[in-house]
Amino acid sequence: MKKISLLGSTGSIGKQTLDVVRANPDRFQITSLAVQSNTKLLHAQINEFKPLCAVVSDRVAGEKFKTEYSGPCKILVGEEHLQDLAVSEQTDVLLTAVVGFTGLRPTLAGIKAGKTIALANKETLVAAGNLVMNLAKAHKVDILPVDSEHSAVLQSMQGQVHSWIKKIILTASGGPFRTRSSEDLQNVSIEECLKHPNWNMGRKITVDSASLANKGLEVIEARWLFDVDYADIEVVVHPQSIIHSMVEYVDGSVIAQLGLPDMKLPIQYALTYPERIAADFGRLDFLKHSNLTFEQPNTDKFLCLKLAYQAGMADGVMPCVFNAANEVAVEYCLDSRLRFVDIPVVIEHVLGKTTNIKDYTLEDIFAVDAQSRSIAKEYIENLSK
Amino acid sequence: MKKISLLGSTGSIGKQTLDVVRANPDRFQITSLAVQSNTKLLHAQINEFKPLCAVVSDRVAGEKFKTEYSGPCKILVGEEHLQDLAVSEQTDVLLTAVVGFTGLRPTLAGIKAGKTIALANKETLVAAGNLVMNLAKAHKVDILPVDSEHSAVLQSMQGQVHSWIKKIILTASGGPFRTRSSEDLQNVSIEECLKHPNWNMGRKITVDSASLANKGLEVIEARWLFDVDYADIEVVVHPQSIIHSMVEYVDGSVIAQLGLPDMKLPIQYALTYPERIAADFGRLDFLKHSNLTFEQPNTDKFLCLKLAYQAGMADGVMPCVFNAANEVAVEYCLDSRLRFVDIPVVIEHVLGKTTNIKDYTLEDIFAVDAQSRSIAKEYIENLSK
Repeated sequence: MKKISLLGSTGSIGKQTLDVVRANPDRFQITSLAVQSNTKLLHAQINEFKPLCAVVSDRVAGEKFKTEYSGPCKILVGEEHLQDLAVSEQTDVLLTAVVGFTGLRPTLAGIKAGKTIALANKETLVAAGNLVMNLAKAHKVDILPVDSEHSAVLQSMQGQVHSWIKKIILTASGGPFRTRSSEDLQNVSIEECLKHPNWNMGRKITVDSASLANKGLEVIEARWLFDVDYADIEVVVHPQSIIHSMVEYVDGSVIAQLGLPDMKLPIQYALTYPERIAADFGRLDFLKHSNLTFEQPNTDKFLCLKLAYQAGMADGVMPCVFNAANEVAVEYCLDSRLRFVDIPVVIEHVLGKTTNIKDYTLEDIFAVDAQSRSIAKEYIENLSK
Repeated sequence: MKKISLLGSTGSIGKQTLDVVRANPDRFQITSLAVQSNTKLLHAQINEFKPLCAVVSDRVAGEKFKTEYSGPCKILVGEEHLQDLAVSEQTDVLLTAVVGFTGLRPTLAGIKAGKTIALANKETLVAAGNLVMNLAKAHKVDILPVDSEHSAVLQSMQGQVHSWIKKIILTASGGPFRTRSSEDLQNVSIEECLKHPNWNMGRKITVDSASLANKGLEVIEARWLFDVDYADIEVVVHPQSIIHSMVEYVDGSVIAQLGLPDMKLPIQYALTYPERIAADFGRLDFLKHSNLTFEQPNTDKFLCLKLAYQAGMADGVMPCVFNAANEVAVEYCLDSRLRFVDIPVVIEHVLGKTTNIKDYTLEDIFAVDAQSRSIAKEYIENLSK
């Protein structure tokens, strides 16, 4: 029985993780749950999965829930307790599906405690990839990707040797604005940003998919997860989201992982890795998905992807800056307080205002993250004046 | 240094195998060559690759060559000597790229001698799959596919466990007649049959590709090579021949191998398996191959595929009958003495005339093969009267 601590259980990945656990009660046990503030859903999840412990990061919501809840599950209030779950004896796998930068500290704590990390929170590797991977190496811990692209890469590398890798080909749906002109994007509404053609995901990642910032984050994540150079990571737009990513080898052979766009597949793979178990996620029917197309990403229209490569290649804290600036910009965009097309403008501004630190410490990362957010906010507030 | 005995060195696969060897002189050494009758090309190959021994199966051509040739390579005349090469101490890998049924005896001899078998001669497994695989199991010998589809399946199974396999999806180009109507096929010429859209191959296999008999043979081969039921082998037409085949696993994940249609890739993979080595075969560019399509094979139009499944499921000697009848029919078709559309008519007739032997011996196979050929010839001769 694998004991799972699930950080972010009320989000899209969290709920689908619970679907996988629900379908395999003999294999997986939820030992702890953590949410930001959705205590109503948390309550139902506690009743169903009977974890030993639950964390509510939001203090107001958490304290309120503590007074309401009277069951056997231990309720902890405050983000700092995510680390308690990460290091708990009752955790075999730490699945971090929290949004944004908050996944970093519990992930590091989990690695130090020797836990397998199932990582849906890509910002962790983007902001501190070098630190995280070195720590994982030192503690002989597996960092298993939960997103479809990196899971596809991992699956395409099974039975292969690292030195045979020629390049990683990340596929991108191209988002809802793939066929729209740059002019057309000047005044798109947040509602339009949130209409993803293939995937049903959380709001933040859906906007990131529309801007291709998400693919940029994935490029940086792939660099660390699979230890390849940026020059050897290619993004190809594949609007049908059936080929989830590929690996080209030195002999010219390309291995790809395909499937329906269903996050439960990579979630389950991370939980069962390196094994596979039967699932009824629905089967890929090539007569229904009879046309797979590919095109080059337009990085003039989707500047976020270009900026992510630039930040990645600059290395040091620049990917952290990219991530922080993007998080703030998307937050404002979701509130309709920043135009979609201004997301890369904000990122570029913040990158330009930051002096890189090549050999960063964890403290540097937190400081740079805070500083980048503050520069981003100030810039956006000024923009709207 | 891997010592290779290459049976069928002047055919399409043979020549491309020598290209792979030529590019890797530090890894591969040709210790023997075997040809049917093309002694002119054999002579040039002997001069370049300096094998210790060469076999010419055709007696007339062989005896003539023996009087002409005066170098250090030992020349043997007659098909029976293929087995000498197979069991020689100077053989690590036996690559059998001979056409049709003649590959069976040397392959069995090679397996008994513990040689790795690189199999381009699919009829060997089709005619006697059960015998060959049981013998290979007993002698702990690898049977490595050299054709692109089975190599793709093998590559898609690396790092996986057999019990995770849900089904094998063999892709088929659909051949030159994919979009032609059944009526249209009534009087196609052999020249039209030989115009394959993607692959440059030998004449016999090119006709088999046009009739989908080749895919049928591959289905039967896959059944033995990968130990899966016929119900779990699916054929999907994929006209671009970029995805070379796929494996679906129990979790719904599909792993595929892609590449340019270049036989040197699967040839090299069989020679280096389970490793990969660098090659300059040309790289797959998704912006050039930007549209991959899939459709159901039309087994009413291409009856050979349906007949192959039927013969395979009937088991016993019926796949051998299918193969023998097809070989004879294609021979006549290549001589323009049988219409292309009559190939399945011949096969169906011979299958119908044969009493199955479920638990066959090697002797049964040779007898059934001879009998099927004779029934096929008689039928065809009567047809043309």
